[in-house]
Amino acid sequence: MTFNGRKIKGVLLDITGVLVESSGSGPKAIPGSVEAVKALQDASIAVRFVTNETQRTRISLVTMLRGNGYSMPVEAVFPPALAMASIIKKEQLRPFLLVHPNCLYDLQSPKITDEEYTCVILGDAVDEFNYSNLNKAFKVIMNNNCPLYALGKGKYYREDGDLTLDVGPFAAALEFATDRPAVVVGKPSR
Amino acid sequence: MTFNGRKIKGVLLDITGVLVESSGSGPKAIPGSVEAVKALQDASIAVRFVTNETQRTRISLVTMLRGNGYSMPVEAVFPPALAMASIIKKEQLRPFLLVHPNCLYDLQSPKITDEEYTCVILGDAVDEFNYSNLNKAFKVIMNNNCPLYALGKGKYYREDGDLTLDVGPFAAALEFATDRPAVVVGKPSR
Repeated sequence: MTFNGRKIKGVLLDITGVLVESSGSGPKAIPGSVEAVKALQDASIAVRFVTNETQRTRISLVTMLRGNGYSMPVEAVFPPALAMASIIKKEQLRPFLLVHPNCLYDLQSPKITDEEYTCVILGDAVDEFNYSNLNKAFKVIMNNNCPLYALGKGKYYREDGDLTLDVGPFAAALEFATDRPAVVVGKPSR
Repeated sequence: MTFNGRKIKGVLLDITGVLVESSGSGPKAIPGSVEAVKALQDASIAVRFVTNETQRTRISLVTMLRGNGYSMPVEAVFPPALAMASIIKKEQLRPFLLVHPNCLYDLQSPKITDEEYTCVILGDAVDEFNYSNLNKAFKVIMNNNCPLYALGKGKYYREDGDLTLDVGPFAAALEFATDRPAVVVGKPSR
């Protein structure tokens, strides 16, 4: 398979909005997408699934996709928490996590004192985004002079037809307060 | 009295950090400031007291200042909530308020349905800055296509020696999510 005259070795596919869309009863396959992915796989094109979804673990994403008719090995799915986990390991970071509880499995929350954190990681923490937790994240960055990582920088998404703030606005809040840009980890933005 | 060759008709004084500083037992007069303000008043210079403090009503500010040795009529003190109240009246706004409970006295919280709000007003809401309230503010701006007012845009302040997020980061969060700049109401920034 070629594109603009160049041989295609692999394809990165977004998950939400490309393979599935949310519905009242959870994510549902978008018509035609299951067949399209299968056609790529049958043509021996390497397919990887990337997402800025930070409310699910890698396993939960794979289970959901398989339940919708897709097939892939677990290793082909890349949520930002996984990319973050490899940065944590490589840089030997001790993160203060402000993320969705579901996402804790893919990361590691060290049991240390406030002074020992070496970075702050923000995910789509939903109800964990309260004044107390945001203040704590802010103080860790300021007092420990350490970086802020954001698992994506989406503005908002729709859930059951209702607008819902994503991780981006909370990253923007801490960027404004601390005068430091966040390091965004996840699928490339537009 | 003249300054750079021009006659001075009046002086605007900030309150926190100029007249008083916070201490464990509440705000305390900064040495020399009581005398300096009195000297201005004795010289018949018009003095007005401006502040971005949005955790106190005008009356509470005047009481605190008088308790620290300052004298002024109530009308000489201008918290942003008062400036906001006059904008609300002039523009006949129906605001969704996300402000400190103490500040509600200077504003007016209309009892209306979500669809009827015509603006969002953010103050230093402290613990009221939770995911549910921020989401509601966001949805009012998006769904009703209406402006965001911020009572100041301070990044953070110190309280009992501890760093604390101010209203600015939360205004920045909603600006990022909605792609609209906030209208900042309060004392001029630097």
